[in-house]
Amino acid sequence: MDITGRRIRVEIINGPNLQRIGRREPEIYGTRSMEDWLAEQRTAFSDSLEITYFQSNHEGALIDRLYTLDDEHVDAIILNAGAYSHTSLALADALRAITPPTLEVHISNIYAREEQRRHSLISEACVGVIAGFGLDSYRLALASIPTLLQQSK
Amino acid sequence: MDITGRRIRVEIINGPNLQRIGRREPEIYGTRSMEDWLAEQRTAFSDSLEITYFQSNHEGALIDRLYTLDDEHVDAIILNAGAYSHTSLALADALRAITPPTLEVHISNIYAREEQRRHSLISEACVGVIAGFGLDSYRLALASIPTLLQQSK
Amino acid sequence: MDITGRRIRVEIINGPNLQRIGRREPEIYGTRSMEDWLAEQRTAFSDSLEITYFQSNHEGALIDRLYTLDDEHVDAIILNAGAYSHTSLALADALRAITPPTLEVHISNIYAREEQRRHSLISEACVGVIAGFGLDSYRLALASIPTLLQQSK
Amino acid sequence: MDITGRRIRVEIINGPNLQRIGRREPEIYGTRSMEDWLAEQRTAFSDSLEITYFQSNHEGALIDRLYTLDDEHVDAIILNAGAYSHTSLALADALRAITPPTLEVHISNIYAREEQRRHSLISEACVGVIAGFGLDSYRLALASIPTLLQQSK
Amino acid sequence: MDITGRRIRVEIINGPNLQRIGRREPEIYGTRSMEDWLAEQRTAFSDSLEITYFQSNHEGALIDRLYTLDDEHVDAIILNAGAYSHTSLALADALRAITPPTLEVHISNIYAREEQRRHSLISEACVGVIAGFGLDSYRLALASIPTLLQQSK
Amino acid sequence: MDITGRRIRVEIINGPNLQRIGRREPEIYGTRSMEDWLAEQRTAFSDSLEITYFQSNHEGALIDRLYTLDDEHVDAIILNAGAYSHTSLALADALRAITPPTLEVHISNIYAREEQRRHSLISEACVGVIAGFGLDSYRLALASIPTLLQQSK
Amino acid sequence: MDITGRRIRVEIINGPNLQRIGRREPEIYGTRSMEDWLAEQRTAFSDSLEITYFQSNHEGALIDRLYTLDDEHVDAIILNAGAYSHTSLALADALRAITPPTLEVHISNIYAREEQRRHSLISEACVGVIAGFGLDSYRLALASIPTLLQQSK
Amino acid sequence: MDITGRRIRVEIINGPNLQRIGRREPEIYGTRSMEDWLAEQRTAFSDSLEITYFQSNHEGALIDRLYTLDDEHVDAIILNAGAYSHTSLALADALRAITPPTLEVHISNIYAREEQRRHSLISEACVGVIAGFGLDSYRLALASIPTLLQQSK
Amino acid sequence: MDITGRRIRVEIINGPNLQRIGRREPEIYGTRSMEDWLAEQRTAFSDSLEITYFQSNHEGALIDRLYTLDDEHVDAIILNAGAYSHTSLALADALRAITPPTLEVHISNIYAREEQRRHSLISEACVGVIAGFGLDSYRLALASIPTLLQQSK
Amino acid sequence: MDITGRRIRVEIINGPNLQRIGRREPEIYGTRSMEDWLAEQRTAFSDSLEITYFQSNHEGALIDRLYTLDDEHVDAIILNAGAYSHTSLALADALRAITPPTLEVHISNIYAREEQRRHSLISEACVGVIAGFGLDSYRLALASIPTLLQQSK
Amino acid sequence: MDITGRRIRVEIINGPNLQRIGRREPEIYGTRSMEDWLAEQRTAFSDSLEITYFQSNHEGALIDRLYTLDDEHVDAIILNAGAYSHTSLALADALRAITPPTLEVHISNIYAREEQRRHSLISEACVGVIAGFGLDSYRLALASIPTLLQQSK
Amino acid sequence: MDITGRRIRVEIINGPNLQRIGRREPEIYGTRSMEDWLAEQRTAFSDSLEITYFQSNHEGALIDRLYTLDDEHVDAIILNAGAYSHTSLALADALRAITPPTLEVHISNIYAREEQRRHSLISEACVGVIAGFGLDSYRLALASIPTLLQQSK
Repeated sequence: MDITGRRIRVEIINGPNLQRIGRREPEIYGTRSMEDWLAEQRTAFSDSLEITYFQSNHEGALIDRLYTLDDEHVDAIILNAGAYSHTSLALADALRAITPPTLEVHISNIYAREEQRRHSLISEACVGVIAGFGLDSYRLALASIPTLLQQSK
Repeated sequence: MDITGRRIRVEIINGPNLQRIGRREPEIYGTRSMEDWLAEQRTAFSDSLEITYFQSNHEGALIDRLYTLDDEHVDAIILNAGAYSHTSLALADALRAITPPTLEVHISNIYAREEQRRHSLISEACVGVIAGFGLDSYRLALASIPTLLQQSK
Repeated sequence: MDITGRRIRVEIINGPNLQRIGRREPEIYGTRSMEDWLAEQRTAFSDSLEITYFQSNHEGALIDRLYTLDDEHVDAIILNAGAYSHTSLALADALRAITPPTLEVHISNIYAREEQRRHSLISEACVGVIAGFGLDSYRLALASIPTLLQQSK
Repeated sequence: MDITGRRIRVEIINGPNLQRIGRREPEIYGTRSMEDWLAEQRTAFSDSLEITYFQSNHEGALIDRLYTLDDEHVDAIILNAGAYSHTSLALADALRAITPPTLEVHISNIYAREEQRRHSLISEACVGVIAGFGLDSYRLALASIPTLLQQSK
Repeated sequence: MDITGRRIRVEIINGPNLQRIGRREPEIYGTRSMEDWLAEQRTAFSDSLEITYFQSNHEGALIDRLYTLDDEHVDAIILNAGAYSHTSLALADALRAITPPTLEVHISNIYAREEQRRHSLISEACVGVIAGFGLDSYRLALASIPTLLQQSK
Repeated sequence: MDITGRRIRVEIINGPNLQRIGRREPEIYGTRSMEDWLAEQRTAFSDSLEITYFQSNHEGALIDRLYTLDDEHVDAIILNAGAYSHTSLALADALRAITPPTLEVHISNIYAREEQRRHSLISEACVGVIAGFGLDSYRLALASIPTLLQQSK
Repeated sequence: MDITGRRIRVEIINGPNLQRIGRREPEIYGTRSMEDWLAEQRTAFSDSLEITYFQSNHEGALIDRLYTLDDEHVDAIILNAGAYSHTSLALADALRAITPPTLEVHISNIYAREEQRRHSLISEACVGVIAGFGLDSYRLALASIPTLLQQSK
Repeated sequence: MDITGRRIRVEIINGPNLQRIGRREPEIYGTRSMEDWLAEQRTAFSDSLEITYFQSNHEGALIDRLYTLDDEHVDAIILNAGAYSHTSLALADALRAITPPTLEVHISNIYAREEQRRHSLISEACVGVIAGFGLDSYRLALASIPTLLQQSK
Repeated sequence: MDITGRRIRVEIINGPNLQRIGRREPEIYGTRSMEDWLAEQRTAFSDSLEITYFQSNHEGALIDRLYTLDDEHVDAIILNAGAYSHTSLALADALRAITPPTLEVHISNIYAREEQRRHSLISEACVGVIAGFGLDSYRLALASIPTLLQQSK
Repeated sequence: MDITGRRIRVEIINGPNLQRIGRREPEIYGTRSMEDWLAEQRTAFSDSLEITYFQSNHEGALIDRLYTLDDEHVDAIILNAGAYSHTSLALADALRAITPPTLEVHISNIYAREEQRRHSLISEACVGVIAGFGLDSYRLALASIPTLLQQSK
Repeated sequence: MDITGRRIRVEIINGPNLQRIGRREPEIYGTRSMEDWLAEQRTAFSDSLEITYFQSNHEGALIDRLYTLDDEHVDAIILNAGAYSHTSLALADALRAITPPTLEVHISNIYAREEQRRHSLISEACVGVIAGFGLDSYRLALASIPTLLQQSK
Repeated sequence: MDITGRRIRVEIINGPNLQRIGRREPEIYGTRSMEDWLAEQRTAFSDSLEITYFQSNHEGALIDRLYTLDDEHVDAIILNAGAYSHTSLALADALRAITPPTLEVHISNIYAREEQRRHSLISEACVGVIAGFGLDSYRLALASIPTLLQQSK
C-alpha cells in the first residue's frame, strides 16, 4: 500500500516462450500452474500490491502493452522479455519512453549461459535486474517494489 | 531458520572500494552507516539468518576469505566483488571451488553502465544476480536465501 | 502531379514507438498532433501528392503493409522504421522485394547516437536517407519525391 | 506411413517475405503457384505424408504456430524462417521447447550470400539443414522425414 | 529571408574529387555544369538564401575555409566532404569548433556502399544528413535551412 | 537417366577422416560398411545414376581428383570435404574452376557445432548444402541431382 | 607553497615491479638510489612541496593507500601504477572515489610499446599523463602541481 | 643553454584546429592570447631556450615544416598534432625520418576521451607524451628539454 | 613507343616522406640522387617512354596532380603514395575517377611490415602492385608499361 | 647437482586456488597430500635438486616472492600461477625483471579449456611450458632443469 | 615396460619443416643428427619404451600415419605438427578419431612467438603440451608416458 | 649471367589450380600454352637465366620442392602459391628456412579482391611481391633477379 492508502499496481509481463510456466518441465518450474503461483503471490502481497499478468510471443504486442500500462498509470512493471531481451532494441525504446519503472527478471542466470544470452539490450532501460532464482526471481522483484517506489519519490 | 532449527549462516562480502558505504555519498547510500544497516538487517532476519560481514580491497584476501567460509561451512555467501567482478578470474575460480552457494550483488545496475562493467566474470560461478536496487540489493539477496537453500536440497 | 496528370501516391510509415508524435514531448515534436501535421503537409503538397499514413509497433504488420502498398501500386514510400531499422533484416528483405522506391527517414541524427543506432539494415534497400531534421525530415522526403520519380523514368 | 499405418503429419512453415512463392519471379520459383506445388507434393507423398502449410510475416505468429503444432503432436516440421533465421533468438528458443523435430530449409544457398545471411540462429535447434536447391529444397526435406523418424526411434 | 529581412547566407562546400560535377559522367550528374546548377538554385532560392560555393581536394584547405566562414558569420554550411567524411577527424573537430550549423550531404546513398564508406566521422558534428538523392541532395539541404534556423532560435 | 537416355554420372568424394564410415562407431554410421551402403544406393538409383566414389586425406589429392572429374566430364559431384571445408581456400578455388556442379554434404549438422565448424569456405562454390541427416545426407544429395541438372539446362 | 602559506603535500606512489629503481639497470634509472633521487627532489621543491613516497606490489595495498591519503587530505598524488595501469579497474575506481587529483606517470613511453601496454585503465580517472621521460617524468609531474592546484580552485 | 653556451632551439608546432588558442574559450585557454603566452614562456626560459612557433591545419604543411626544422638542425620539437595524432601515419613517418627529438603534447587528457581519441599514431615516433595539463602541458615539455638533451648525449 | 610511333608518357609520383630519396640513407637508396636515377631511367627507356616526376607531402596536392595528369592524357602513372597508401580514401577515389592506369609501387615489402602498413587502400584502384625491390621497384613498373598498355587495348 | 658440486636450488610456486592440492578432489590430485608429494620428489631428485615450496592467493605476494628468490639467487623457478596466468601483466613483468629462468606449469591442459584460459600472459616471460599432465607436470618440469641450466651456460 | 612386461610402443611424429633437425642450425638443435639423438633416447628408455619415428611435410600423410598407428595399436604418440598445429583442423579431427593418447610437443615456446603461432588447433585433441625446451621437449614427453598410461587405466 | 660467368638458376613454382595456364580461359592467360610461354622467356633471358618450372596442387609437395631447390643451391625462386598464399603457414616456414631469395608473384591484383585474398601469409618470407600484371608478373619477376642478386652480395 502506498502512502495514499492505495495498493500499488504492478503488472508482470512475460515474453516469448514463457506461456508454459507451470504446465511443463515441473523440475524447473514446479508443479503449480502459473495461475496458482500468481494466486499465491496475490495473497502474499495482498496488503500492498495489486498484481496483473500479461504474456505474448509477439514483440509488437509487448510494446503495445507497455504503452497501455503507461496510459493506465501502473506503478511498476516486472518484465521477463525472454529472448527479446537480447534482440529487441524496439522494446528497449518503449521502456525508455514510458513512465513506470521496470524491473528486468530472468528465471535462469543468463550471465552463466552462452555468449548471445549474456547481454540484455533492455537492461539499460530498466531500474534493476534479478536473474537466476527460478520463479522466486519474480517474488523478489515484487518484494523490491515498495522500497523502490519510496526511494524514487 | 533451517529445518534443523539452526539459523542459516550467511556472510556478506564486499570487495574493493566498498568500505565507505554509509560514510559518504548519503544521496546514494543513505545516511545510515553500514554498521547501522547491518544491525537493521540482523534484526529483520533474526529468526532465520545469522549474518556476518567482511570487506577487503585485496583480491587475495577475498579469495582467502572464501576458503575460510568454506571450511566453516557457512550456508550461503552474498558477494559484491566491485571492480574485481570484471577482472578477477581467480575469484571466479575460488567460487567454483567452494561449496556454499554464492549470490552476486551490485548496488548499481551494472548492465546499464559502460562496456567494461557489463560483463562479470564471476556470474558464471554464482547462483543468481541482483543488481540495481541500491543497498536493497543486499536485502533481496538475504530474502532469497531460505527458498534457495530449500530448493537445492 | 505526375506527367499523366494523376497525383503521386505516397505513404508515410512509422514503426515502433512512433505512435505518440504530437501527443507528448512538445519540445521535440512541437505541440501539433500528427494528424494536424499531416493535414498541413497534405495541404502544402495537395497539387502533387496524395499522402496516406500507417503506424505499427509490429514488425510483421509493417512487412504486411509494404506488400499491400506494392499490390496497390503506390508511387513511393517514406519509412521511419524506428528501432527496427537496426535489427530487422526481414523488413529490409521486404523493401527489396517490392517495387515502389522507399525513402528512409529519421527524426534524430542517428549517426550521432550510440553505436548500435548508427547502422541501419534497411538503408541498403532504400533510395536515400534523410536524418536529423526533426519532423522536417518527413517534409524534405515528400519534397524529394517528384524529382526522384522523374529521374528513375 | 509410419509403423502404425498412420500417415506422418508434416507442416511446412514459411516465414517473412515468402508468401509470394509461385506468384512472382517465375525465373526463380517457376510458374506454378505455391498451391499447385503443394498439391503436387501431396500427391507425390500421399502414401506416407500428410502435408499442411502455414505462412506469416510475424515472428510472434510463427512462434505461436510452433506451439500449436506441438500441442497437436505433428510428427515433423519443415521451416524456412527467411530473414528471421538470422535474427530471431526467440524462434530458436521455441524450436528448442517443442517436441517435433524441425528441418531448416532455404531456397537459396545462404552460405554463398552476404555475411549477415550466412549464420542462422535456428540451425542449432534443428535436426538438419537443406539449402540452395530452389523449391526442390522442400521436396528433399519431405523425402528425408521417414528415414529421420525411423532413426530417432 | 530571416526575420531581420536579411537573406540567409549559406555556403556549399565540396570536398575531394567533387570538382568535376557537371563536367563528366552526365548519366550521374546531368549535363548541366555545376555553375549552371548553382545559378538555378540561386534563382530558385533567391528570396531567402544567398548561396556561395567552395571546393578543394585539400583537407587543410577545407578546415581553413570552415574557420573563415565562422569568422564571416555565415548562417549555415552544406558540406559534402567526400572521402574525408570517412577519414578526417580533424574536419570533424573543425565542425565542432565553429558556430554555423552544418548539414552533411552525399550524392550517393553511402549506407548502401562498401563497409568503409558507411560510417562518416563528421556526422556527429552535423545537424543532419541527406544522402542518396543525387544533386537533389543539395537542393533538399538548401530547402531545410529556413526551418532549421527558425527551430534553433 | 538424362534426356539422352544416358545415365547421369555422379562421384561422391569424401575428404579427411571419412575413410572409416561403416567400419566404426556403428551408433553413428550404422553397421553396414561404406561398400554396402554404396551398393545399396547404386541399386536404388540404378535407373538414373552411375555412382563412383573417391576418398583421400590429402588436400592436394582432392584437388587433383576434381580436375580429373572435370576432364572426364562427370555430370555432378557430391563432396563432403570434412575439416577441409573450413580451411581450404584452394579446394574452393578448384570447385570454382571446374564445370560440374558440386553439392556440399555433411553427416552432422555443422551449424550446430563449435564456432570454427560453422563456416564452410567451399559453400560459396557449391550449388547447395545438405547437412545433419547422417548418411542419408548423401542419399538426399543423390536424389536432388536429376532435378538440379534439368533446371540448369 | 599554496596561498595559505602551507606547503603542498604530494605523495609519489609506485606500483608493482618499481621497487628497484636506482638499485639496478643504471643505464635506465641512473646510478642514484631512489632515496637519493627523492632527497634531491625534496630539496629542489622544498619551498613549495612536501613529498612522501609509497611503493607496493599489491593492488589492494595501493587501493588502501589511496584511501588513507584521501583521509589525510593530501593535495595531490603522483601515481606510476606499473602493469596495474593496464589491468586494474579497481584502482581506477579508487581514483574516482577520492578527492585529491592524481597525475599518471610512466618512466617509459608506454604508447610506443606492445599493444597491451598502450591502454591505461586509470588514465580516465587522472588529471593528466606524463610518459617517456625516465625518472624526469616524476619531476615534471611535481613541477606541474602548483599550477594545477591553482587552476582547479 | 647547452654545453656550448648556445641556447637550445625548440619549435612548438600546433596542428589542426589549434590556431585559436587564446582567442576563444577563455575558460579553457585563459584570456591571454597565444602570442602573450609565448612571450611569457620566452621570457621564463630565456636563459636556456630559443622558442619558435608554427601552426597549420594542413597535414602536408606540418610534414614540410618538420623537414625544414630538420634541415635547420633545431634541437627539439614540441608537437601538438591535434586530430592528426590519431589519423596521420604520414606525420609519424616524418617524425621517424628526422633527427630532432619530438615531444608529443596534448592540452586535454586524450586518454580520458572517446575511443577514437585514445590512440595516437605519432606516440611511437616521439620521445615522450604530456597530456591533460591545459596550456601548462607545453610549459612542462619546455621544462623537460634540457634534461632530455643531456641524457641522449 | 606506342603503335602511333609516339613515346608513352608516364609520370612517377612520390608521396609523403619520399622527397629525400638519394639524399640520405645511402645503404637503402644508394648514393645516386633521385635526379641521377631518373636521368638513368630516362636514358634506358628513351625509345619508348617519356618520364616525368612529381613529389608532394600534401594529400590534396597529390589528388590535384592526378587530375592534371588525367587532363593532360598521360598514358600511365606510377604511384608510391607512402603512408597515404594506408590512410587516404580520397586518393583512392581520385585514382578511380581518372582514366590513366596507375601502378602502385613500394620501395620496401610493405606486406612484411607492421600490421597498419600491410593494407593499402589504393591497391583496389590500381592495375597492379610491385613492392620490395628498392628503387628497382620503379624500374620494373616502367618495364611493365608497354605490355600493359598493349593488353588493355 | 651442478658443475660446482652444489645442488641446484628450485622453488615451486603455486598461485591462487592451488592451496588444496592433495586435500580434496582425490580423483584429480590423488590421495597424497602436497606435503607427501613434495617429500617424494625431494627424495627422487635428492642428488641434484634442492626443492622449496611457496603458495599464495595474493598476486602481490607472488610478485614479492619472485624478487626474494631473485635476491637469494635460486637457480630456477617452477610456477603454476593459476588464474593469474591469464590476467596478471604485473606477474609477467616481475618474471621479466628477475634473473632465474622460470618454467610455466599447469595441471590441466589449459589450451583445451574455455577461450579465456587459453592465453597465458606469463608464457612470454617463461622459458617453457608444460601443461596437462596432472601433478606429473611439476615432475617433468623438475626433470627438465639440469639440462636447461646446462644449455644456458 | 608396461604391466604386461611388454615395452610401451611410442611414435614420434614430426610435421612440416622439421626434417632437418640435427642437419643445420647447430646452435639451436646441437650438432648431433636426429638419428643420433633418437639412438640416444632409444638407449636411455630401452627398458620401457620402443620408439619409432616419422616425418612428413604433407598434412595428408600425417593424417594417414595417425590412422596406421591407430590400426597398429601403438600406446602413445608424440606429435610436433609444426605450422600445421596452427592451421590443420583435419589433423585435430584425426587425433580425436584415434585411440592412442597424443602429446603435443614444440621445440620453441610458441606462446612467446607472434600472434598466429600462439594458438594450436590440435591442443584440444591432445593429452598435454610441452613447449620451449628445445629437443629436450621430446625427452620430457617420452618421460611422461609411463605415468600417463598408468593413470588412464 | 652472374659475375662468375655462370647463368643464374631460377625456378618458377606454381601452386594449386595453376596447372591450366595456357590451356583454358584464353581471355585471361592468352592462347599460348605455359610451355610456349616458358620457351619464350627462356629465349628472352637466355643470356642470364636458366629457368626451370614446377607445379603441384599439394601443399606438402611444394614444401618438399623448396627444400630440394635449397639443396641444389638454386639462385632464386619465383613463387605463385595460389590459395596457399593465404592459408599455409607451413609454406611460409619453409621459405624462411631455405637460402634462395623468393619472389612472390600473383597473376591478378590480389589486393583488389575479396577480404580473404588480400593477406598473404608468405609475403613476410619473400623479398618482394609483384601482383596484377597477368602472366607478365612472372616476366617482371625474372627481370628483377639480376639486380636483386647483385644488391644482396
